[in-house]
Amino acid sequence: MNRLLAIDWGSTSMRAALLDEAGAVVALRSTPRGMLTIAPGGFAEVFEAQVGDWMDGPGTRCLMAGMVGSKQGWVEAPYCACPAGLDEIAAALQAVVEARPSRRGRIAIVPGVSCERDGVPDVMRGEETQVFGALDLLGLHDGLFVLPGTHSKWVMVEGGRIRDFTTVMSGELYDLLRRHSILSRSLPPADAEVAHDAAAFERGVRAALSGGSLLQTAFSVRTLALFGRMSAEALASYLSGLVIGEELRCRPLPRGAKVVIVGAPALARRFERALGIAGVAGVLLGDEAAWRGLHVIQARASALFPEA
Amino acid sequence: MNRLLAIDWGSTSMRAALLDEAGAVVALRSTPRGMLTIAPGGFAEVFEAQVGDWMDGPGTRCLMAGMVGSKQGWVEAPYCACPAGLDEIAAALQAVVEARPSRRGRIAIVPGVSCERDGVPDVMRGEETQVFGALDLLGLHDGLFVLPGTHSKWVMVEGGRIRDFTTVMSGELYDLLRRHSILSRSLPPADAEVAHDAAAFERGVRAALSGGSLLQTAFSVRTLALFGRMSAEALASYLSGLVIGEELRCRPLPRGAKVVIVGAPALARRFERALGIAGVAGVLLGDEAAWRGLHVIQARASALFPEA
Repeated sequence: MNRLLAIDWGSTSMRAALLDEAGAVVALRSTPRGMLTIAPGGFAEVFEAQVGDWMDGPGTRCLMAGMVGSKQGWVEAPYCACPAGLDEIAAALQAVVEARPSRRGRIAIVPGVSCERDGVPDVMRGEETQVFGALDLLGLHDGLFVLPGTHSKWVMVEGGRIRDFTTVMSGELYDLLRRHSILSRSLPPADAEVAHDAAAFERGVRAALSGGSLLQTAFSVRTLALFGRMSAEALASYLSGLVIGEELRCRPLPRGAKVVIVGAPALARRFERALGIAGVAGVLLGDEAAWRGLHVIQARASALFPEA
Repeated sequence: MNRLLAIDWGSTSMRAALLDEAGAVVALRSTPRGMLTIAPGGFAEVFEAQVGDWMDGPGTRCLMAGMVGSKQGWVEAPYCACPAGLDEIAAALQAVVEARPSRRGRIAIVPGVSCERDGVPDVMRGEETQVFGALDLLGLHDGLFVLPGTHSKWVMVEGGRIRDFTTVMSGELYDLLRRHSILSRSLPPADAEVAHDAAAFERGVRAALSGGSLLQTAFSVRTLALFGRMSAEALASYLSGLVIGEELRCRPLPRGAKVVIVGAPALARRFERALGIAGVAGVLLGDEAAWRGLHVIQARASALFPEA
C-alpha cells in the first residue's frame, strides 16, 4: 500500500492529510473551500489547486469522506444502510471518474450511512469514517460515539458495525437561539469573543437534565437577565449548557460505560464536562479519528479488491 | 360602574374593546401599533389617536393589559408574585398619570405576574388577564390553561388564584426552524400560503409525543424530504405538529380533566387536536377572555377602592 491522501470534505471546509503506509500523518492542509462554496462541476479544479501536487507521487491514492459525496458534491456516493461495517463501506466506495485522466482509478469517496426508525430515515456523511477511525485508535468493537457539531451524531456500534445512529440539531439550535431569537437581546453580540464561564455552563447543563424540554428551559435565559441574576457573558455559557444538557437528556446514556467524543477540542471538552454531570465518562478524540478512519477503510478496500 | 375601555396592548398590536356596564362588547378596534412600534414617550399620542374619543364619554375608565405595562411600555406596572388572585391583581393596578389631564385617575394598567421555580423566575403580561376572564366565563376556580403563541404560557389555577405558570418558546422556535434553519430548504417559502395538512400535523404530534426532544425529532423534516417521503407543503404542517407535540410532551397533562385553550382560532384548534392525540380534552376561548378579564379586574378594583 502506498501513500494515502485522506480528505474530509464537508459543507464549510476541506481538510486534507497525506498519510504514509502505516497511516501516520506526513503533512496537513485545510481550506474554507467547503461544498457550499463550490459550483456544480467545480470540484476537480479546487481539488487540483489544493492538493493536486500530492497526487503526483507515484501510486498515491486519495480517499474522501463527507458532503463531497452528497448529491450536491463532486460525485454522489449512495448511502450504505445500517448495519454497516468496514466491509460494507469498503465495498461501496464510489470512484471519481470526473477527475483528471492521470488521476483515474486513484480517487474514491466513502459512502454516507443511513438508518431508519419508525418510518423516518436518518443520514450522515463523514461521521461514519470518524467512528471507524475511533474504533481502530481505541481498539474497540462496540460503544456509543458522539460527534458534536451543527448536527450532532450519536452513533451506536456493535461488533464493529454501525447499528444505528441519531441526528440531534443542537449546534444549529444553539446558533438560532444565540443569534436570531429574543434571547439574543440578553446576550453579548453573537460574534463577540466571550470567555467560557464554567459555573454558568454547568448550571445550564443541570437545568436541562432536570427539565422537560429546551422549549421550556430556554426562556430562563431571558428571565435571569430580566431579574439581573446572571450577566450577559455568563448567560452565553449558560445557554450552551442548556442546549448540550438537552442533547444528553434525550439520549439513553450507558451508565458505567464510556462515551467516545470525537470533535474539535473546545466543544468536545464541553461535552465531556456535561457527560460528567450526567454521571458518564467520556473519551476525547480529534482530527486523528478522520485520518485513521480513511486509512482503515482504504486498507480494507485494498484487501477486498487487490490491484491487478 | 360605567363603561370600560378594555385594551390588550402587546408587543405587535393594540386591540381595544368598549364594554358596557355588564361587560358586553359595544365596539372593537385594533391596530398594529404594538409596543415595539412606539418610541419612549409616544404611548399617550397613540392612545389618543386610536381610542381617545372613547374616553370622552363621562365616567369612562380604561384598563390595559399586556406589554404596555413593561419597562419598555407606557408606565411600568411591577409584577405581582404568585400565588396571584383577583384581589392581588386589583390591588396592584398601576395608574397612568402620564396621560392627558382630562384622563387622569381614569386609566390604569394590570400588573404582569411572576413566579419562581428552582431559582429561575418566569414572567407573563396580559395572559393573567385572559386567565381571569376564562375563569369567569367558564365558572371555574381551578384548572390548567394554555395560551399558545410566540411564547406559550401554561397557567395552573387553584382556588381562583394563579399558583404557577411556565413559558414555552414554541411559537418562536417554530418560526426559527421554519425560516432560518436548514429545514427551511425542505419547506415552501416561509411567507407562502400553505393549506394545513391534518394528517401530516398529526404524524408530527405523535412523533414528538413519543420522542425525546425537538432537537432530535426536528431533523426528520430534512430526511423525509431527502428521501421523498413527504411533500414540502405537508412538511410545514408536520413541523408544526412536531413543535406543538413537543410542547405537550414536556407538560404534565391532567388526564380526565380538561385544558382550557385561549388563543386565535386556527392555532387554538391545532392545540385542541394535539391535546386530543395526547388523550386530553380541550375547551376553546378567544378574544372574549381578555375583555372579560379586564371587566372582572375592574369590577374587583372598584369594589376594593370605591370612588370618593
